[in-house]
Amino acid sequence: MATDEDNAVPKWIEELKKSLDPSLISTEREICEEFGTDRWHAMAKPDVVVQAETTEQVQATMRFAFENEIPVTTRGAGVGYVGGCVPLQGGILLSVAKMNRILEINPRDGIAVIEPGVILQDLVEATGARGWYYPPDPASLKECSVGGTIATNAGGPRCLKYGVTRHYVLGLEVVLPNGELLITGGRCHKNKTGLDLIGMFVGSEGLLGVIVKATLRIIPLPESRMMLTATYPAFADAAKAVETILNSRWQPSALEITDGFTLQAARDYLGADTLPEGDAHLIVEIDGRKASLISDLQELHKLIDSTGALSVEEARSDEECEAVWKLRREFSYSLRATGLIKLNEDIVVPRSRLVDLVNFARKLQEDTGIAVACFGHAGDGNIHTNLMVADYDTNRKNREKADAALDVLFHWIIENEGQITGEHGVGIAKKRWFKDAVSPASFDLHRQLKMAIDPKGILNPGKFIEP
Amino acid sequence: MATDEDNAVPKWIEELKKSLDPSLISTEREICEEFGTDRWHAMAKPDVVVQAETTEQVQATMRFAFENEIPVTTRGAGVGYVGGCVPLQGGILLSVAKMNRILEINPRDGIAVIEPGVILQDLVEATGARGWYYPPDPASLKECSVGGTIATNAGGPRCLKYGVTRHYVLGLEVVLPNGELLITGGRCHKNKTGLDLIGMFVGSEGLLGVIVKATLRIIPLPESRMMLTATYPAFADAAKAVETILNSRWQPSALEITDGFTLQAARDYLGADTLPEGDAHLIVEIDGRKASLISDLQELHKLIDSTGALSVEEARSDEECEAVWKLRREFSYSLRATGLIKLNEDIVVPRSRLVDLVNFARKLQEDTGIAVACFGHAGDGNIHTNLMVADYDTNRKNREKADAALDVLFHWIIENEGQITGEHGVGIAKKRWFKDAVSPASFDLHRQLKMAIDPKGILNPGKFIEP
Repeated sequence: MATDEDNAVPKWIEELKKSLDPSLISTEREICEEFGTDRWHAMAKPDVVVQAETTEQVQATMRFAFENEIPVTTRGAGVGYVGGCVPLQGGILLSVAKMNRILEINPRDGIAVIEPGVILQDLVEATGARGWYYPPDPASLKECSVGGTIATNAGGPRCLKYGVTRHYVLGLEVVLPNGELLITGGRCHKNKTGLDLIGMFVGSEGLLGVIVKATLRIIPLPESRMMLTATYPAFADAAKAVETILNSRWQPSALEITDGFTLQAARDYLGADTLPEGDAHLIVEIDGRKASLISDLQELHKLIDSTGALSVEEARSDEECEAVWKLRREFSYSLRATGLIKLNEDIVVPRSRLVDLVNFARKLQEDTGIAVACFGHAGDGNIHTNLMVADYDTNRKNREKADAALDVLFHWIIENEGQITGEHGVGIAKKRWFKDAVSPASFDLHRQLKMAIDPKGILNPGKFIEP
Repeated sequence: MATDEDNAVPKWIEELKKSLDPSLISTEREICEEFGTDRWHAMAKPDVVVQAETTEQVQATMRFAFENEIPVTTRGAGVGYVGGCVPLQGGILLSVAKMNRILEINPRDGIAVIEPGVILQDLVEATGARGWYYPPDPASLKECSVGGTIATNAGGPRCLKYGVTRHYVLGLEVVLPNGELLITGGRCHKNKTGLDLIGMFVGSEGLLGVIVKATLRIIPLPESRMMLTATYPAFADAAKAVETILNSRWQPSALEITDGFTLQAARDYLGADTLPEGDAHLIVEIDGRKASLISDLQELHKLIDSTGALSVEEARSDEECEAVWKLRREFSYSLRATGLIKLNEDIVVPRSRLVDLVNFARKLQEDTGIAVACFGHAGDGNIHTNLMVADYDTNRKNREKADAALDVLFHWIIENEGQITGEHGVGIAKKRWFKDAVSPASFDLHRQLKMAIDPKGILNPGKFIEP
């Protein structure tokens, strides 16, 4: 938005205050700065923050923005990793964090109805308390909003068995760019009535509409979970074990792999004896009936013994399983404890190329001197590849070097039939590889769809689709 | 297409023959009539049938059609239930049935790559032979094309646990209306790169593009399956059992319910002692590891004993399970054996309203004198509601009466938060309720998306979206 001075308040804000309860509107610098970020390395100050509490307020905001052609960027909990909710062109930052009611949990229909600002963990706990389950489980579970997980089609370890967020959205209410309310889908578990408009909005990163309500599918909570953890001499051995498990007709609820660099950081941070020896770590989680799961675990234990593991440990109780997940999370903290900035890239490769990816990461480390730590969802080839960079935000030289290394990484991914993002989204962080990552016809079609739904280009402008 | 006489060959066909190998093109009446139908009650003769064998031929056909504004309707195996591939406005019937190669089955990547004309059963068998599994299982498995299941986002009994076709499509190649080839997605199991273009085409019923190749997710084949079948005094008892099973944290791979009318037809057709006494029938299938499934079955058997079942039987081997599925299919044949025409409506209700639906069906039967048979996928509320009508195709009075009854049924569905189609699609059969079934904003958005992708309206014109 053009303003005479950087700190001047644009005149349209006075008009906005006539369309909307002024108490929802903030123009204070601190608030605008706070709402101008997520967890990525970018901040863009909006002209105004609107903290909506109702669908009608979102509609009023969009109607105003549409008439006046003001950019609107929607924000949930603001914990994304790619700058997706950073308002690059200023304008209105529309927060839906206060629309945070769980409206219904209904096991009879197998659904939960929520507002977008509900924190995912709260939803998971509320369904779990009823013996039901909402499976999508990104690592940011405790702080991300469900609306944000819908906007990014979030995944997590248990996608392997249970699928991503899209597979759980049965109905949506979306405020369109012109302020109109779109209601699509509903309480039914199957629906072939027309085109898949829900799919159109899930994962659309705020570019097409503002989600104000969602009806989600919930499923019976598995009665029990157990885990095996194993260490291997090398990453390739652990990757081979992943293949053996799947080829032996197992469907684990999670299959997580961690490379040697990450394990070393964990040993440095947590103590050398935290982990058994080995240069790769594998987690296998299974779920099912309590009475039979122990027999499954024993059978799987034998199989893993046959894969050349250096150590195999069992977790049979909920507490033991939680301790394994806690250790897994510590891997991430251990990387942070190196004092380096972690550029976490959620790239995906065809599953057969896990080893190629990690070999490439090793070579990239040798070539650039930037440490590369790999861990993640081995079962679906979604390996978080973390470039560990000193003073990324403040040291221009380091930043340029890291950005050049990312360029090499992403082009390798594209050449090897991978995807540049599996669950975080494109946002700002991956925008510069988007065009190379999709086919020319796909790039054009993205534009056509954006134009059809948001002809004035007011929603989240400056991101991966530009008019 | 305007032609001077009904049987005259339009002049543009001579031009088409210059753009395409003439041996792919048929204008003979018998062929045009054969390709002008599916399993529903409509036939519309295309001007010409093109039987494409390659992507390039599909592209050449579309380029020609785009330039000359000729309608194109795509057809796979032609076994749909709603007239979806019936070429209402003539023009070109584009058959992809001969594009029927399984190009790759790759357990290492967890994918299968197919052409659209592959018969679903062939894919399921080829993956099964490798110990892998492609779950979508519509009843037409043995004769439907995979392309057709993608175009309709097909389901089946095992969707309850495994999800619908959309959850298995990782990559698509689609010829767009102007002949351009769109490549989207690929071999990766997770992908958040841009908008969900795959979802745009899955279930689009031939209105947006022609699918010429698909990369599908395959999963480890469960090692073992077992089943329980039970009969109940009344449908409400069986529906209550469904609720009890799910509330007891079971995730069956199928939960199928059948009403008294259908059971009576089965007893009449197959012999009175084919089925234990009872006015409702329930099938529960579970899958998992061979070593532990028997303990699961025993536990589930006890639970079902507690739900007031009149009889409970176990199927422990593959052969016994297959016998149950065979009996289940016989229910359908038994209805056909009544000599009446079966109008099979794949409606969906919120799961808590299964009993309301069947009560409503009973009342509809009383009010109209038309028998109504209900059976289907209880776990996801997708109950095939079959109106049994004498001489529907030839007796105008019966047809009008049945159509009026359908009108009552579909309006009840819409008023009760149901969906008019769960897996067959809208096609011609449900077109007249489409506008009432979606919100006004959804109806408009359908048009906008259609215009964005197919601005000349040449793909499958006359169906649920009209310019």
